[in-house]
Amino acid sequence: MAPKNILLTGSAGFVGSHLTERFLADGHTVIGVDNYISGQPANTALFANHPNFKFIQADVSEGIPYKAAAFDGQTLDFVLHFASPASPPHYQQFPIKTLMVGAQGTQNALELAHAHGATFLLASTSEVYGDPQVHPQPESYWGHVNPNGLRSCYDEAKRYAEAITFAYHRHHGVDTRVIRIFNTYGPRMRPDDGRVVTNLVMQALAGGPLTVYGDGQQTRSFQYVTDLVGGIVALMGLPESEAVHGPVNLGNPDEYTILEFAQVIRELIEPGLEIIHEPLPADDPRQRKPDISRARELLGWAPGVDLRAGLTRTVESFRQQVLQA
Amino acid sequence: MAPKNILLTGSAGFVGSHLTERFLADGHTVIGVDNYISGQPANTALFANHPNFKFIQADVSEGIPYKAAAFDGQTLDFVLHFASPASPPHYQQFPIKTLMVGAQGTQNALELAHAHGATFLLASTSEVYGDPQVHPQPESYWGHVNPNGLRSCYDEAKRYAEAITFAYHRHHGVDTRVIRIFNTYGPRMRPDDGRVVTNLVMQALAGGPLTVYGDGQQTRSFQYVTDLVGGIVALMGLPESEAVHGPVNLGNPDEYTILEFAQVIRELIEPGLEIIHEPLPADDPRQRKPDISRARELLGWAPGVDLRAGLTRTVESFRQQVLQA
Repeated sequence: MAPKNILLTGSAGFVGSHLTERFLADGHTVIGVDNYISGQPANTALFANHPNFKFIQADVSEGIPYKAAAFDGQTLDFVLHFASPASPPHYQQFPIKTLMVGAQGTQNALELAHAHGATFLLASTSEVYGDPQVHPQPESYWGHVNPNGLRSCYDEAKRYAEAITFAYHRHHGVDTRVIRIFNTYGPRMRPDDGRVVTNLVMQALAGGPLTVYGDGQQTRSFQYVTDLVGGIVALMGLPESEAVHGPVNLGNPDEYTILEFAQVIRELIEPGLEIIHEPLPADDPRQRKPDISRARELLGWAPGVDLRAGLTRTVESFRQQVLQA
Repeated sequence: MAPKNILLTGSAGFVGSHLTERFLADGHTVIGVDNYISGQPANTALFANHPNFKFIQADVSEGIPYKAAAFDGQTLDFVLHFASPASPPHYQQFPIKTLMVGAQGTQNALELAHAHGATFLLASTSEVYGDPQVHPQPESYWGHVNPNGLRSCYDEAKRYAEAITFAYHRHHGVDTRVIRIFNTYGPRMRPDDGRVVTNLVMQALAGGPLTVYGDGQQTRSFQYVTDLVGGIVALMGLPESEAVHGPVNLGNPDEYTILEFAQVIRELIEPGLEIIHEPLPADDPRQRKPDISRARELLGWAPGVDLRAGLTRTVESFRQQVLQA
């Protein structure tokens, strides 16, 4: 793509920071927006001195201050809405903020895209499939979500975000794109995000035993973050057509057992560490596995980073963070 | 109940007008709010001279003007959120407004209830079950909804409304109640709501043939509106307990074929009218049937008005409307 002006909400989040890195490397201009409710100031600091990076600290649920100096009279080519608490500990700490960034936040970003004639891209999630009764999940699966359970502040917010995105496309003709992100890992995950990779890496770096719940034979599919970024860039690069508006799963269908994660992480950090087993918690994360046929056909995309390579880079990044802290 | 102060959004809608009528008859004070996007000014006019009825014309998605004269310094005991386009022709005409009244509208009403220490009641819908794969539907069924189909502006807005209602209960301790309303009919339905009862009554009153799609053997469950009102009043009357916060189905599980509706309506209006059959449309309304076990147990409630009695009152009301027009 020729250089574009890209507004990215959630720029200081885990995925947002990798998107910013890629966009700047590709010669685009990025206006990042974040309120740091779950994003991290360090992720803004990474790019603070880049000439094509601008930042607005704002809560996109309250409105995007489009008259901010960061805009400087430019027309946006893309508006990407990635802002939201995304891990269970974070969204359950801020359930109402999470609901708001899915509704008002998405709408504010859509209005901005509409005003600029920009292409809008929504970061949706595999959580819209809930506790799926179909494996793997294709985009045509409608999901199995409790509309008022403890996770509904996130799941229903994202389903609403998809619905209003399609409403802006159908009603106002906005060129909208929707990705459904499956489990993703990599450098700059928040150490307190409560996810299995983070927990295991942090335990091993602290020199303690690695905790595996149950027998560890339950499987998970994880994509490395640069694979995700590649899929997003591919979808952004497609010209508008009827096909580009439907949701696209982006995830890695390779399954590994939790025990395999623990073993690779232990090997990378300190092979002598103990792996201990604890009982499965009542709300063990739900298993999902993407059907990525649509991404393969539409984008010619498939994940390319294998688990060992991805974990090696992740562990290295966390090790440096721990050393710096 | 002793006299209460009740704020009711959607007061000029079909169900809102019947609630207003009942509350005023029971000695309560009603502050109605409506923006007439699908409500009708005639439903406000019905109560305009009642000393205990006050009205604010406002879009609850934009905010409820709680400093309006209608409040007069009073503390609200109940906030009931019934505002929303509710029939497919209406919500598909206003998809974004429909999404907003489910998100921002529900949140504004919840904030008001929270500020007043009032009990909040959400009018949710059987549409949260979508195209159900379980019959009849109990409240524990999570539904089968397309998150980005043509109906998602309504279905997902209501699922979001439930999620944020539970978030305010869990996070802020608001005493919240949720009803899921199944197909309801009666006087003061909008003649253009596109529903089967309305269409058949209007056709018969116009002296034309009655249109039945397909062979008419498909069934529907319809409750008469005063039955619904009785269930709502019963739920409002319960003291707070863990049990009252969960959703409660309110509907009539008795099933009739579409042909039976047409035959009863014809008999009530003009027995000589022809019934014609046309092909089923592609998006024929989805069939649902409530499991009302929970309403029976929690409220001691069951619908009491049978189809012939309800249709007689409905036809009479429509006949007077047509005569007045």
